[in-house]
Amino acid sequence: MRRAIAAEAVGSGLLFATVIGSGVMGDTLSGGNVAVALLGNTLATGAMLYVLITMFGPISGAHFNPAVTLVFRLLGTLGTRQALAHFAAQIAGGLVGVWIAHAMFGLDILQFSAKARTGPGQWTSEVVATFGLVLTILGTLRHRPQSVPTAVALYITAAYWFTSSTSFANPAITLARSLSNTFAGIAPADAPAFIACQFAGAVLALATARALFPEADLAKDATADA
Amino acid sequence: MRRAIAAEAVGSGLLFATVIGSGVMGDTLSGGNVAVALLGNTLATGAMLYVLITMFGPISGAHFNPAVTLVFRLLGTLGTRQALAHFAAQIAGGLVGVWIAHAMFGLDILQFSAKARTGPGQWTSEVVATFGLVLTILGTLRHRPQSVPTAVALYITAAYWFTSSTSFANPAITLARSLSNTFAGIAPADAPAFIACQFAGAVLALATARALFPEADLAKDATADA
Amino acid sequence: MRRAIAAEAVGSGLLFATVIGSGVMGDTLSGGNVAVALLGNTLATGAMLYVLITMFGPISGAHFNPAVTLVFRLLGTLGTRQALAHFAAQIAGGLVGVWIAHAMFGLDILQFSAKARTGPGQWTSEVVATFGLVLTILGTLRHRPQSVPTAVALYITAAYWFTSSTSFANPAITLARSLSNTFAGIAPADAPAFIACQFAGAVLALATARALFPEADLAKDATADA
Amino acid sequence: MRRAIAAEAVGSGLLFATVIGSGVMGDTLSGGNVAVALLGNTLATGAMLYVLITMFGPISGAHFNPAVTLVFRLLGTLGTRQALAHFAAQIAGGLVGVWIAHAMFGLDILQFSAKARTGPGQWTSEVVATFGLVLTILGTLRHRPQSVPTAVALYITAAYWFTSSTSFANPAITLARSLSNTFAGIAPADAPAFIACQFAGAVLALATARALFPEADLAKDATADA
Repeated sequence: MRRAIAAEAVGSGLLFATVIGSGVMGDTLSGGNVAVALLGNTLATGAMLYVLITMFGPISGAHFNPAVTLVFRLLGTLGTRQALAHFAAQIAGGLVGVWIAHAMFGLDILQFSAKARTGPGQWTSEVVATFGLVLTILGTLRHRPQSVPTAVALYITAAYWFTSSTSFANPAITLARSLSNTFAGIAPADAPAFIACQFAGAVLALATARALFPEADLAKDATADA
Repeated sequence: MRRAIAAEAVGSGLLFATVIGSGVMGDTLSGGNVAVALLGNTLATGAMLYVLITMFGPISGAHFNPAVTLVFRLLGTLGTRQALAHFAAQIAGGLVGVWIAHAMFGLDILQFSAKARTGPGQWTSEVVATFGLVLTILGTLRHRPQSVPTAVALYITAAYWFTSSTSFANPAITLARSLSNTFAGIAPADAPAFIACQFAGAVLALATARALFPEADLAKDATADA
Repeated sequence: MRRAIAAEAVGSGLLFATVIGSGVMGDTLSGGNVAVALLGNTLATGAMLYVLITMFGPISGAHFNPAVTLVFRLLGTLGTRQALAHFAAQIAGGLVGVWIAHAMFGLDILQFSAKARTGPGQWTSEVVATFGLVLTILGTLRHRPQSVPTAVALYITAAYWFTSSTSFANPAITLARSLSNTFAGIAPADAPAFIACQFAGAVLALATARALFPEADLAKDATADA
Repeated sequence: MRRAIAAEAVGSGLLFATVIGSGVMGDTLSGGNVAVALLGNTLATGAMLYVLITMFGPISGAHFNPAVTLVFRLLGTLGTRQALAHFAAQIAGGLVGVWIAHAMFGLDILQFSAKARTGPGQWTSEVVATFGLVLTILGTLRHRPQSVPTAVALYITAAYWFTSSTSFANPAITLARSLSNTFAGIAPADAPAFIACQFAGAVLALATARALFPEADLAKDATADA
């Protein structure tokens, strides 16, 4: 289990550094064309997700996301103690990743975001985004497990563009982004509503998956390591 | 069969939400550079197609498209009642997806598109676009079934760019887009001609596939569920 | 063999329509930012190559390119008569594809390009581009045949950007592009030098492949159909 | 072993020509929007990496990178003499690639870069970038060897965007880029610090991989040819 926790921490660190760093890069270089900045941010995030899920999937399940860990806890794949350890690793590792991104771009390490992200449209977006993410994982994991890294990477690629919130879809990354006053940031006061919507979308996806994929023993195959 | 219909509805909803939502996102952020908006729209649509076909292919064949369902009805893979249920699920699920996209971006839910899309160039485009889509499906399904999600996703990626209509290639999405006055919309009066061209392209592709892939029993393998 | 010729014709038609059509689309929409136009042109061409090679590889080898057909003739995979039939199908099918692209965008069907593409830099580019293409095909075909569609698609994706000619790498497409006064065109007077450089690069790649991959019987596996 | 050295030389040549050439292309065409130039540079580099690793992996391991070769020397996969031959092939082949890129774009063959790339942010970036690259290779090589080409290509795709240095992550390419006064260049005086950080990141990744993937005999499977 120690290796799984280390994998969640290292993976979350690289993932969150990618989200923040590529946002800064796009913002800096795009001359104000936000769509071009978002293209770079999307390309980098999707690419890194493929890499990390391919590499760490067999060790920890490659969640990097408390909403995903919660779903596997509800399915019984993980025990409560293990799920809590995953949460801690995702948040701690992810924060270090954000700070490394700040260091790489010569920014202050400790920051708070001033970027307002709120309102019914964005909340709906976070429910939908996390619903789709968890449905993708549960829908591909059992019958096409070798497609999970590509499917998750491409799902997030799409979700950055089709939701008005650009699809955070991850409570740990929402927390971490609230500590970065950059392209990918979110004001700390707006984070709790995002996180609540994300957990709601995840639970909704679990119910939907149970109806759509009934023959699948969803609790099995979830991690090679658990 | 109930699960197949649910899969067609949920899949069409996510697909059409992606088409509309990423169009709005690109249009809003690209500062008037339509090519950049189309890049985001293309990336999101292609990515989501891969995800949905991977996930729902084993359940319903992952058509999300009445022209594709018609082809499999003509091949005998689906019965008439099942094909009609697919049509209904694609249209109903797809419309809900469009409306969710409107909600996510804070737009009026009910809209009618004012975007003219007409003329021989665009009609030729829809024949060609749907011809290529159906040929891609029939050409990969039997001998390289594991390549179908990638092939369809990449075909649409190309078709958004090489046709002057940006390749609707789907009667249900044409209907749904007529109810969205956004980047991806089409005026309701222009929809019927598009839909007729799409069915024509599909039937032409079926005839071509029968000539090019004769040894393949095209009616087999079409869905795991039918 | 008739099916192989039909596959070469239909595939070349779809490929050349994609090259021309996506060039027009990018040029029209990008507001003069040629790099953005080239991104769309690249994305569409690479995507379509994956689709066509996946679909037609088992039928004709999916050459769509006289330089590639020549290499397999030199390897003995194809007879002279079959190679000549491939050439004819590639040129005839490809020209129809160009004309369909013109029709889709409402342009005059018959055109001659006025775009000068000449000089030692561009000639070097065509030698390098075709060398890399043929090396990619021969280097992946025998030991990783399932990777050929992806490898060729990604090679051309790279080659559109790293050569100053944007990598025609195909005598049939060079001929066809000389009949399109659009983004992807080339003045007819400049075409012969491009074509000579392309055949030179192909033959150079064959010699290099024989040195680098000696244990491979390069003549085998080239097409399932020949 | 002679074939392995030739593969490292040819592969490094094509890779470095792609890095330099696509940088020039993006810079020339993007009208000063550096993010668009970097998108083209990223797309081309990632695509070419997939091609070269697929093609040359079975022959030489497809390192094209002294930091990667050092790691496999430390793991005992390569002997010292073989590692030194790899270094020489990577540098010599890579330089020829840079010069071919200059020739393709009609630039002076011999150049020195005037582009300053220095400071703690960029040095941190190079440690992180190379750490991630080597971890990706070691983390996928043993259990998912068929994913290595995609994983490395996508890792570099992400790293071009999430590090402030745009991720050189390769001592040979750093040297070669110092001889190109173009988009991808680095002033010769700044190269040694980059190279030191790259070797440091590689060694750090090796230690991390030994902790995270302990059951894997990391020294095995590294090349088919060694």
